[in-house]
Amino acid sequence: MANKPESPRNADRENSLIIGRNAVAEALRSGRSIDCVYLAKGNPAGSVLALVSKAKSAGIPVKETDPRKLDSMCGHANHQGIIASAAVKDYAKLEDIFALAQARGEPPFIIIADSLNDPQNLGAIIRTAECAGAHGVIIPKHRSVGLTWAVGKVSAGAVEYVPVVRVNNLANTIDALKEKGVWVYAADMDGTPWCDVDFSGAAALVIGSEGEGISRLVKEKSDYVVSLPILGKINSLNASVACGVLCYEVARARIQKRKEGAT
Amino acid sequence: MANKPESPRNADRENSLIIGRNAVAEALRSGRSIDCVYLAKGNPAGSVLALVSKAKSAGIPVKETDPRKLDSMCGHANHQGIIASAAVKDYAKLEDIFALAQARGEPPFIIIADSLNDPQNLGAIIRTAECAGAHGVIIPKHRSVGLTWAVGKVSAGAVEYVPVVRVNNLANTIDALKEKGVWVYAADMDGTPWCDVDFSGAAALVIGSEGEGISRLVKEKSDYVVSLPILGKINSLNASVACGVLCYEVARARIQKRKEGAT
Repeated sequence: MANKPESPRNADRENSLIIGRNAVAEALRSGRSIDCVYLAKGNPAGSVLALVSKAKSAGIPVKETDPRKLDSMCGHANHQGIIASAAVKDYAKLEDIFALAQARGEPPFIIIADSLNDPQNLGAIIRTAECAGAHGVIIPKHRSVGLTWAVGKVSAGAVEYVPVVRVNNLANTIDALKEKGVWVYAADMDGTPWCDVDFSGAAALVIGSEGEGISRLVKEKSDYVVSLPILGKINSLNASVACGVLCYEVARARIQKRKEGAT
Repeated sequence: MANKPESPRNADRENSLIIGRNAVAEALRSGRSIDCVYLAKGNPAGSVLALVSKAKSAGIPVKETDPRKLDSMCGHANHQGIIASAAVKDYAKLEDIFALAQARGEPPFIIIADSLNDPQNLGAIIRTAECAGAHGVIIPKHRSVGLTWAVGKVSAGAVEYVPVVRVNNLANTIDALKEKGVWVYAADMDGTPWCDVDFSGAAALVIGSEGEGISRLVKEKSDYVVSLPILGKINSLNASVACGVLCYEVARARIQKRKEGAT
């Protein structure tokens, strides 16, 4: 009875962890949306390997992790070499994004977040995308944070409303989007100034990570490179701020087009 | 020799604290830029009271604080009831902002951050303001985080380049700005859509805190209320993202004006 009340933040975090063989097996069986499976480095037991193979065939990323990191993730509970983290929200399918755009009677407006590792950035981008009326966010399955509890928290609830799709290969997805008539705009330093670009059609904005930017292949696959001028001395905007400026440029183009249509 | 190496983050934080009567007295004497003085609640010694009165007459905010908070701030060093936190950068004067605008040959472009308590938000706003070419940021002396080490860190170095001015009374400062021909635009929910506003002249954008928005008097004193439409279901953009969108709208207006001037 003398226990210190647990902070809601830690409680959320702990509820999102599925610890040990039986719990992970049950989560995989039930079809619960899983963000990532953490496997202790070393010689895993056969039953753990069976779970890993089940996770992989369900398309869930598996990370080999130092056993001490697993210990600390779960507060030294008996994890038996395997932990899964539940996604705060089920991942959507690409079709869901197009269905949402169609339901709203708008040309599709999509954010592609290329390899963001920082939950703060991905959460802020999902929040910004939702506010600016985007129909979905696409992230890669590997080299990216997923829909973890931290991302959900920073998104200020936006994960509940904006479909987030996780894909194996961003370059292939960009090809698929282009086939559906979506123009793909990569935000990077050496492109057309943002205010000289026509965003009024179906548009996907690619936002890169702050450190590494957009990967080469993704940039090559994009139709345009679009730039925000840096008018001061430090050389980079925060990724979610850049995303916000470009999102509202898309919103602006659409508002203007509607006005022109109305007159 | 077996000490754990201190993380640079904690070292920065600790270097920014001035602990105990003699150290605070010396800092006040040397004119070092001080963000805030923390005074232990209770019955302060006469020598501490003398320091408090010196700090107040130098315009430094003094916060009465639970002694246990002081203990934990300084890692239980002997603080003798008083701690000062150094600013990561000297505060500038309003004239410095106008001088920078003049030196660049541009109409003044100023961000007013109304009562932001979150270092993350103020730091991000200073970073965004610098990137978008603003000539300065104005914050109130009370009910606002100052130029603490955390704000400096989040600003990604922007505190080195953009003058930050701390004022006693934002409403009076807005009057002073208006007298100098600056138009003041408060960002809030019930105003003119951001893309119907002409930002090409001398402009100050007022950004409120995420929870409480802009204070009533500051909003009344502003010339215009300008709004970003919320096109999704969650009802607020992050303060630094909203600041970024509006900053680049100012940049856009100025780029366009220059183009028109050139043709």
